[in-house]
Amino acid sequence: MRRELFDIPEGIIYLDGNSLGAPPKHVAERMQEVVKHQWGTRLIRSWSEGWWEAPQRIGDRIGRLIGAAEGQVVVGDSTSVNVFKALMGAVKGTSRTEIVVDESTFPTDGYIAQSVGELTGLKVRAVSPSSLDLTEDTAVVLLNHVDYRTGAMLDMAKLTEEAHSAGTQVVWDLCHSAGVIPIELDELGVDYAVGCTYKFLNGGPGSPAFIYVPHDKQASFENPLSGWNGHRAPFAMEPSYEPDAGIARARVGTPDILSMLALDAALDVWDDVDLHVLWKCGLSLTAQFRMHVSNLTSLEIITPDEIPRGNQISVRCPDAAEVIRKLIARGVIGDHRPPDILRFGFAPLYVTSADVRRAAEILAEVVNS
Amino acid sequence: MRRELFDIPEGIIYLDGNSLGAPPKHVAERMQEVVKHQWGTRLIRSWSEGWWEAPQRIGDRIGRLIGAAEGQVVVGDSTSVNVFKALMGAVKGTSRTEIVVDESTFPTDGYIAQSVGELTGLKVRAVSPSSLDLTEDTAVVLLNHVDYRTGAMLDMAKLTEEAHSAGTQVVWDLCHSAGVIPIELDELGVDYAVGCTYKFLNGGPGSPAFIYVPHDKQASFENPLSGWNGHRAPFAMEPSYEPDAGIARARVGTPDILSMLALDAALDVWDDVDLHVLWKCGLSLTAQFRMHVSNLTSLEIITPDEIPRGNQISVRCPDAAEVIRKLIARGVIGDHRPPDILRFGFAPLYVTSADVRRAAEILAEVVNS
Repeated sequence: MRRELFDIPEGIIYLDGNSLGAPPKHVAERMQEVVKHQWGTRLIRSWSEGWWEAPQRIGDRIGRLIGAAEGQVVVGDSTSVNVFKALMGAVKGTSRTEIVVDESTFPTDGYIAQSVGELTGLKVRAVSPSSLDLTEDTAVVLLNHVDYRTGAMLDMAKLTEEAHSAGTQVVWDLCHSAGVIPIELDELGVDYAVGCTYKFLNGGPGSPAFIYVPHDKQASFENPLSGWNGHRAPFAMEPSYEPDAGIARARVGTPDILSMLALDAALDVWDDVDLHVLWKCGLSLTAQFRMHVSNLTSLEIITPDEIPRGNQISVRCPDAAEVIRKLIARGVIGDHRPPDILRFGFAPLYVTSADVRRAAEILAEVVNS
Repeated sequence: MRRELFDIPEGIIYLDGNSLGAPPKHVAERMQEVVKHQWGTRLIRSWSEGWWEAPQRIGDRIGRLIGAAEGQVVVGDSTSVNVFKALMGAVKGTSRTEIVVDESTFPTDGYIAQSVGELTGLKVRAVSPSSLDLTEDTAVVLLNHVDYRTGAMLDMAKLTEEAHSAGTQVVWDLCHSAGVIPIELDELGVDYAVGCTYKFLNGGPGSPAFIYVPHDKQASFENPLSGWNGHRAPFAMEPSYEPDAGIARARVGTPDILSMLALDAALDVWDDVDLHVLWKCGLSLTAQFRMHVSNLTSLEIITPDEIPRGNQISVRCPDAAEVIRKLIARGVIGDHRPPDILRFGFAPLYVTSADVRRAAEILAEVVNS
């Protein structure tokens, strides 16, 4: 839909935007401006010329893509750190005794949940999202919107309601859905959400993650990582911690401005994108790839066919690592996840139908040879 | 000492390198290479072409500047987050009941200590570094090597020994000393250290911080932020967390590569710098400024005259905020810390004796007018 805004290298079909999005063309120039002018010429003065507020300002830009009104999303730290903040915030002061996590979640979410469990004395129970079995003991449930392996997508509305019916809070991990699927956090009354910005949002390698804490949760949200950036008066250098009244309380330390402003630049391509249109475009690309792969190979596609689903097609393949090496040598970049999954992501901003067809043909040549 | 490697803007005397270091000239070009080639052309492949190991590789480069042998320093996250890791690691499993912090510490350290105290049930006691009064109840003491307000420097050898004599662990915050003062972490047997890289190390605004965990502590160090980057087999996507055997266990989430590789580039200027020579150069600059300010004004200098001390001169001044505004308007960039402190940092890599003299003259003109 916006291929002209991206510099995809000649001869490359890039189907790994679900892992690391490609850079919009203008990001390199913006980084020059940031390094040479903002850092080099303005030096420390830049902190009062836009840098300090950048985490909230860029958070609001992401908020528009995930159905969050202003003042509820802040950018900074990694997804793992934000999962920690969200879970610790959710269980603070609870008398309930367990944290429930999606057993197929991206590992870091489960690892962090385990640590939160150890720190707080809550038990962690791993479940299938199809049977959460939430009880009056469940303080919070941590769910991945789109499964990183299979691309299966959970029903956020239904599961959020299920959690709330059990008096349980819900934390949604949007890493694999932000920027390709319309999301309505405010409308669904989601309690917390986190996500990364370097996949479909094209923010750059390891660009800062985000956390969503809705207005009605902010006053009670206690950030366990009470760094000075979250203080209500950070430059007063007060001896005791008093959190900011709003979303800035989810900030921790000094933000990584270079990574953050690359993300800011990358978000420009979203300015006039209709996510509903984009999502249809993505569904069409994955449907086309499914059809071509089914026609040309006997590989098993494990991504569910039903809608909604994530913007990827995962294929079971015995020599996944070797097949990916061969595909990359032929210019088709996807990735694999152990033990035997080939994963192809379809970023509708820059992947075309011609790419999809050619990628399937090359895949067929590799696996049929 | 290396002024020719930096692009200090015409007409500016930059005395705020203790807050945000100036960019070495070549950083802008390196960022172009990173954005256009590594991210844009190599795309996801760059993760296996140097990005993944960057936090440890760059950590080792910093290790050489703080007396840490290889494999003990890793770069990532903010200083606040690393203070959290270090303190949580230090108190894990202890039967002792208190955390001691330097009462004059940079606020974020105290805020994080407070949070660690709340999470673990330990009491936090704020003390003057001149009388730590460590007891058999003290699990860990958190100290700032150089006081951010006054520039006073603590005796790391003496206080580390004092802590160890009391059976207490010590966490050193090196934010205001790394890159200007020779530090010998290994030699002194320091337990943990953290620091930022955007001050005297010139890593860029909010560039990732570092944590030092010595070899003999690594096996028992438990990172409370157990993100997937610290896993012993991060790409195996195992359901349970098993930490890496070495310093990588202090990693958390996906590293912010753009900020990190700007830091990497900035560290090139240190390749043939002798920190002992640099430190003498810094002491000379601060001594010159002290002399000029004493000769030209009646302002009270609160930075101690004795050696060792940090590379800054802090001056008490009633209208500090207004005076700094006037100084900046005249091209002398320092900063102020509430309520009444003017702070001037002297980065010996790019500040000259002529800068020092001229800055003092302008300060005198501003305060005497």
